[in-house]
Amino acid sequence: MADDGRGKAGSAGSARASKPAKKRFSDLPKRIASGAVYLIAFLACLYMGPISTMVLIAVVSGLCAYEFYRMMRISGLMPISVLGIVFAICYPITAFIGGQTLMLGLTFILLGILALWYVIYPRVRVTDISVTLFGAVYTGLMLSSFVLVRDGITGYSGGAVALVVFVSVVINDSFAYLVGSRFGRHKLVPRISPNKSWEGFLGGLAGSMLVWLALPFIPAVDVSVVEALVMGAVCGVVGLLGDLTESRIKRGAGVKDAGTIMPGHGGMFDRVDSLILVSFVSYLMLKLLGVL
Amino acid sequence: MADDGRGKAGSAGSARASKPAKKRFSDLPKRIASGAVYLIAFLACLYMGPISTMVLIAVVSGLCAYEFYRMMRISGLMPISVLGIVFAICYPITAFIGGQTLMLGLTFILLGILALWYVIYPRVRVTDISVTLFGAVYTGLMLSSFVLVRDGITGYSGGAVALVVFVSVVINDSFAYLVGSRFGRHKLVPRISPNKSWEGFLGGLAGSMLVWLALPFIPAVDVSVVEALVMGAVCGVVGLLGDLTESRIKRGAGVKDAGTIMPGHGGMFDRVDSLILVSFVSYLMLKLLGVL
Repeated sequence: MADDGRGKAGSAGSARASKPAKKRFSDLPKRIASGAVYLIAFLACLYMGPISTMVLIAVVSGLCAYEFYRMMRISGLMPISVLGIVFAICYPITAFIGGQTLMLGLTFILLGILALWYVIYPRVRVTDISVTLFGAVYTGLMLSSFVLVRDGITGYSGGAVALVVFVSVVINDSFAYLVGSRFGRHKLVPRISPNKSWEGFLGGLAGSMLVWLALPFIPAVDVSVVEALVMGAVCGVVGLLGDLTESRIKRGAGVKDAGTIMPGHGGMFDRVDSLILVSFVSYLMLKLLGVL
Repeated sequence: MADDGRGKAGSAGSARASKPAKKRFSDLPKRIASGAVYLIAFLACLYMGPISTMVLIAVVSGLCAYEFYRMMRISGLMPISVLGIVFAICYPITAFIGGQTLMLGLTFILLGILALWYVIYPRVRVTDISVTLFGAVYTGLMLSSFVLVRDGITGYSGGAVALVVFVSVVINDSFAYLVGSRFGRHKLVPRISPNKSWEGFLGGLAGSMLVWLALPFIPAVDVSVVEALVMGAVCGVVGLLGDLTESRIKRGAGVKDAGTIMPGHGGMFDRVDSLILVSFVSYLMLKLLGVL
């Protein structure tokens, strides 16, 4: 009664045996509403330009870091949350201002402060400072690559490339959900995420590839259709990996959602788990292909 | 009797109960011998040029990472040692080849592999991957800044600046040891490192400042004497911090030395603990002053 409330079924009120599925459907309106807010915020910031994109990513990074450290505290660790959150917010800002050099400098400084902290406070353990580093870097540094993608090409083309990256993640998630909940039969990774199916994964993969097909049509972007499809496929797989990583972090902490900021989705970290890894891999691939 | 040994005064050989201090002096010839090997190797590599310096730092990073992970395993953690060591070795190499951009790319890739590893192996915990990241970054990434200092100015001037950084750490250690063991009265941080005294710290600080005084005399280096003295003082403090950080890591694992590769000194990590932080702070200061 206290913790694990399921909820009434959304529109179709038929009785169902499986609890997760019922929850999922009962949450659908809320899920769609908060998903729409998230989507609109992202698209608006992307459209308005590099600065708003940077601010958005900084806020998202800070929220993810906050949720990450919260889960770590639940697991019994003592990360230096405030420090980690501040650095997670700073990474996208430095990515915008000074690119890689400043981001590296920030990592150096974070390590220096962690060393100082570790020496000063006798109760802090290596695991605490390591987890603090991991949280800031996994959320802030990784998401900064989205800023680097956005700023890699000036003008609207940069925004369009960033849009492809972002939309591919959204479509990957949505297609996986839609295909999986309708045709899902073969469990993908029952141990980590019992609701995922191979069918859903393939649906998401196709969606991601489809979105990346837009890339060759963006002005100032010189990639072939095959390259775009390969990048879409890689991002599809990597998006799943990001999702599973976050699921495992949650399982480790014994929580169902990373946070509560997005009704129906859970926390911000739940929502952008795929984007974290997809941004970085996209950045890497676009850099290697000479697009950025 | 067990823990907090003081030691015989340098030449005066009166009998004392304390074991660590006795050990320290009985080790002196070994200590000097292996210290000399280390010193000569470092100076030779610095003299021979950027490539040999990079190779040296890569080897030192790998050894430090190895010793770090060994201590973590003793503490009951399960870092992915081989991965961390490989990345610790790669950091200085990428610093040499591509500078900061590649180093950042390497961090991205390390995070990606760690996420994959975490998803694949159910027994791996967040703390394990966090500690793996910390080990590689704290040794490899931090020591890479020494390579960046060396390569920041072309030709012999770059070598000379790197020499100042390195020698200042050695002199800091030696002066602290010499002054501390002769005049040390006031304990500095009894909880972490019982043998350290304020007198020794100030001796080391003076030594570090003295060495940095050489900086304004290096061709193509435009710093004032005051700037050099300030940098020397900062490096003196930071060197102590690096030393204490490593001491705390050792205490956490319950080991006396990080390793055994340097007879009389312990492990490589024991020897370069100060250099790790001093390299990075020197790099930062020299960069800010426009020297690099």
